[in-house]
Amino acid sequence: VIDSEVSYQSKFVSVLDDTVILPNGQETTFTRVELKDYVTILPFLEDKILMIEIFRYPRNCLNLELPSGQIEEGESPKESAFRELEEETGYRAGKLESIGFFHPLSRSTQKAHLFLANELKEGERKLDMTEQINVKFYSIKEIRKMLSAGKLTHAPTLVALQKFMLMNINGY
Amino acid sequence: VIDSEVSYQSKFVSVLDDTVILPNGQETTFTRVELKDYVTILPFLEDKILMIEIFRYPRNCLNLELPSGQIEEGESPKESAFRELEEETGYRAGKLESIGFFHPLSRSTQKAHLFLANELKEGERKLDMTEQINVKFYSIKEIRKMLSAGKLTHAPTLVALQKFMLMNINGY
Repeated sequence: VIDSEVSYQSKFVSVLDDTVILPNGQETTFTRVELKDYVTILPFLEDKILMIEIFRYPRNCLNLELPSGQIEEGESPKESAFRELEEETGYRAGKLESIGFFHPLSRSTQKAHLFLANELKEGERKLDMTEQINVKFYSIKEIRKMLSAGKLTHAPTLVALQKFMLMNINGY
Repeated sequence: VIDSEVSYQSKFVSVLDDTVILPNGQETTFTRVELKDYVTILPFLEDKILMIEIFRYPRNCLNLELPSGQIEEGESPKESAFRELEEETGYRAGKLESIGFFHPLSRSTQKAHLFLANELKEGERKLDMTEQINVKFYSIKEIRKMLSAGKLTHAPTLVALQKFMLMNINGY
């Protein structure tokens, strides 16, 4: 990297134009998009998976997803997962374990951290003003059907649910 | 949406600040990031899966992924998948079938289209000057190990490989 220019910056998104030298010596410009890291939580209660139905702009549709949220300043991914789960669904996790992470966007260093939540207890729901969320429970069988029918398109929801399915297959 | 302002635009990325009215009547600003749709291809040959090792900026590391690429103007996702597979790996697909799509980023309408490629034959490799790519074959068993160890972090690679694993489990 021989130069980096901030071309756009807002609370949630930064765009940087980096001038880089390739290993073969050529110079090129690379547009980097920086977004905050986030967590996605797979809450499991009495053989059911808790999902949320949320209105998504800019796609302007109701989307079925696992609860997710940005990691706030000074928070660890796990702390964030505890907080987001309770805020969005009203359930508090007794147990929370990491089931991996991934990079949603090659053009970014953003990380999505995935957690499995167990031992759910009632907590306190607290939605942002921009959030309209319905909480829904689905059986493993229903999740499997939605996965194979391609009904779920939210990246971290897909990665976490597919991982959960693979983890729960005997002998896999 | 009552207003939309283009705040940044380059060949690969646009950022728009949209002023929207929420269903509850409140006005808010939403930063939308638009990126080109892309394809990711899972090439399957003689019980092995072909992957690529590619250097990724801005994370500055070699990453193991399935071949992917942006859909060009006027191209269908399937046409793009045929082209990208051959350009990046030198293999031409005899058969290409959709195994779904997803949205990598909630803040965007971008779509990632996934394809399973079969009946691979030798074609002509053609890399971009910014691409440094090694082609590698992995057995299903090796892929399973890497998935469960969390070694793969490229979103469409994860979604496609997990889907493939689920599709190939008897009785699932």
